[in-house]
Amino acid sequence: MRVGILGGGQLGWMTILEGRKLGFEFFVLNKDPKAPACKVADACFTPEQAETFLKSCDVITYEFEHIEQGLVEKVSHLLSPSAEVLKLKFSRIQEKSFYRKMGYPTAEFTFAKGEELYKKLVEFGLPAVVKAEKLGYDGKGQYLVESLFGMDEIFKNHSKSENFLVERRVNFLFEFSLIGVRSKRGDVRVYPMTINHHEKGVLLYNYTSSMHIKEAHNILTSLMEDLNIVGLLAVEFFFCQDGKVLINEMAPRPHNTGHYTLDGCYTSQFENLLRAIANLPLGSAKLKLPSGMVNLLGASIQDIDVEGLLSLEGIKLYWYGKEKRERRKMGHINIVANTQKEVEEKIKSVLYLTYQTQRV
Amino acid sequence: MRVGILGGGQLGWMTILEGRKLGFEFFVLNKDPKAPACKVADACFTPEQAETFLKSCDVITYEFEHIEQGLVEKVSHLLSPSAEVLKLKFSRIQEKSFYRKMGYPTAEFTFAKGEELYKKLVEFGLPAVVKAEKLGYDGKGQYLVESLFGMDEIFKNHSKSENFLVERRVNFLFEFSLIGVRSKRGDVRVYPMTINHHEKGVLLYNYTSSMHIKEAHNILTSLMEDLNIVGLLAVEFFFCQDGKVLINEMAPRPHNTGHYTLDGCYTSQFENLLRAIANLPLGSAKLKLPSGMVNLLGASIQDIDVEGLLSLEGIKLYWYGKEKRERRKMGHINIVANTQKEVEEKIKSVLYLTYQTQRV
Repeated sequence: MRVGILGGGQLGWMTILEGRKLGFEFFVLNKDPKAPACKVADACFTPEQAETFLKSCDVITYEFEHIEQGLVEKVSHLLSPSAEVLKLKFSRIQEKSFYRKMGYPTAEFTFAKGEELYKKLVEFGLPAVVKAEKLGYDGKGQYLVESLFGMDEIFKNHSKSENFLVERRVNFLFEFSLIGVRSKRGDVRVYPMTINHHEKGVLLYNYTSSMHIKEAHNILTSLMEDLNIVGLLAVEFFFCQDGKVLINEMAPRPHNTGHYTLDGCYTSQFENLLRAIANLPLGSAKLKLPSGMVNLLGASIQDIDVEGLLSLEGIKLYWYGKEKRERRKMGHINIVANTQKEVEEKIKSVLYLTYQTQRV
Repeated sequence: MRVGILGGGQLGWMTILEGRKLGFEFFVLNKDPKAPACKVADACFTPEQAETFLKSCDVITYEFEHIEQGLVEKVSHLLSPSAEVLKLKFSRIQEKSFYRKMGYPTAEFTFAKGEELYKKLVEFGLPAVVKAEKLGYDGKGQYLVESLFGMDEIFKNHSKSENFLVERRVNFLFEFSLIGVRSKRGDVRVYPMTINHHEKGVLLYNYTSSMHIKEAHNILTSLMEDLNIVGLLAVEFFFCQDGKVLINEMAPRPHNTGHYTLDGCYTSQFENLLRAIANLPLGSAKLKLPSGMVNLLGASIQDIDVEGLLSLEGIKLYWYGKEKRERRKMGHINIVANTQKEVEEKIKSVLYLTYQTQRV
């Protein structure tokens, strides 16, 4: 099986490392030929070489959503999950409107552009979360607006014609995510839920929980059906103070909160993505052991205590080999242990040894 | 860390797939640039390019023992485990004599060459196992001689000047192996023992056991000290009917009976090899879950029931992408399950689905 991947980041890198074991070949389309996935692919193509890339592939998937629409159309006949799903992710307003239309629970929202944004915010009430319609990830283009004075910052970063999503800030008890995989033949597996801790919009760590929130499970499987997903769907949820579950957002690709599956589950999210799009039976999503993950944000390998980390039992280091940038995801640590409590303790140790304790 | 590997087979391939996660770079020296490890290495060199290879590496290890002595000398200053260990493995007679000299238990043996072999066999008594001194692996160059008529076959395959090891055939209850890892700083970890099932000298399957055979454990750790191993040492043992333990042979490299560690252990044998030679702390060799492994011998991917295999819970396919040859190791299946009994049942299912049942 010759698999094409749009995007060359760590999600593609891990997909390839897992897919090599199945004997698959991998071709990456990415601007930067030094990206992590390019280092382990059979070949890496630039967007200008899209035609050659296309000819090399039996099936194409993606590892990020912000793909140029022209390219999506060019490869759509081989794309899994489908171009329709990607299009929905092209705009935060479209995504939210889809949830509303289909009756899925989300935070109350509206949208506006330019000067109209002031008026809408006054009507909607503050505080509110304002998010640029397009190209946002890891907290980028997101603003908590507590007073209209806060708008200056937004229009420093965005043009006056941009569209914005305006969301009610949710008082949640915790954030969690569920990742599901669905194959061509409609089989479905759902990974254990994980409890997620973000810092300034970026995931810092997460761990598996033995909780089973039926409503969230139903939402995930129902979304996979609605969107006719062939591949992965990750959904981030808020668990609210009133006991309700709200969708924060979804991602039709391998998800940062599923990195632990590489060491914690019978079958990783990456392998199950490949099984799904290759029309093979899905693997078990069961846990081997309670698991967790800590991102290594904005650090070079010299910035972390590698000796200390590798001395901890049950940890596994993943280093993506990317150029250091502030708050960039440079690598992660997977953790397994005998109990959830032990995992949480190991997370603390890892945060300490990676000098991220102040972030908790 | 820039790691050089002598040899391009599946052991190197898995070492690289694991080492990528640590952010290491890999350079392979191998005749055939289409070998599995070459497909995932940063660069692959032929033996003629040994000088360039050498300049690319901070440390060099090997994934098979039959390396040309001139090459070994050229790279010996970077080699882990050391050139001395490799030299011992260059000759079966040397290896056995080393065990005898150091007082390690092995089957009774002698050695002879040419016509002298007949005389020695008569003195030694039949049946005996006759093994070519050099270049044997996976049952190659090994003969069970039950009568002197059997000698014709040997001298069909070997020159009249070759040296042979003559061993007493051991009546063993079972074969097992232990794999240990030792770091530059002398730290040691030992993986759980596995019970191994060979077919015509080639490992067909193995599984972890909760047994702990103290004598074997002591032999392994003592051998690692004697040989000043930096890296892995795998020792295959016979457990005899009289309750004694005998060394069959050792291998100072990743071992087929340790493939299960990729999915079954906290740290795989491949990662621990890399940690050892990179002077990093060793990882835990503990089991996550009871585990097993089945080799896929002499099969193309079309020859096995991939659908059926991938439908089994707890199995993971490794396909090396090599050219099919009779009885060649083409891939393997790792197995994890909740109990050893379940693992043994899964092994049966895998043998059935890979049409290897008749071999058990």
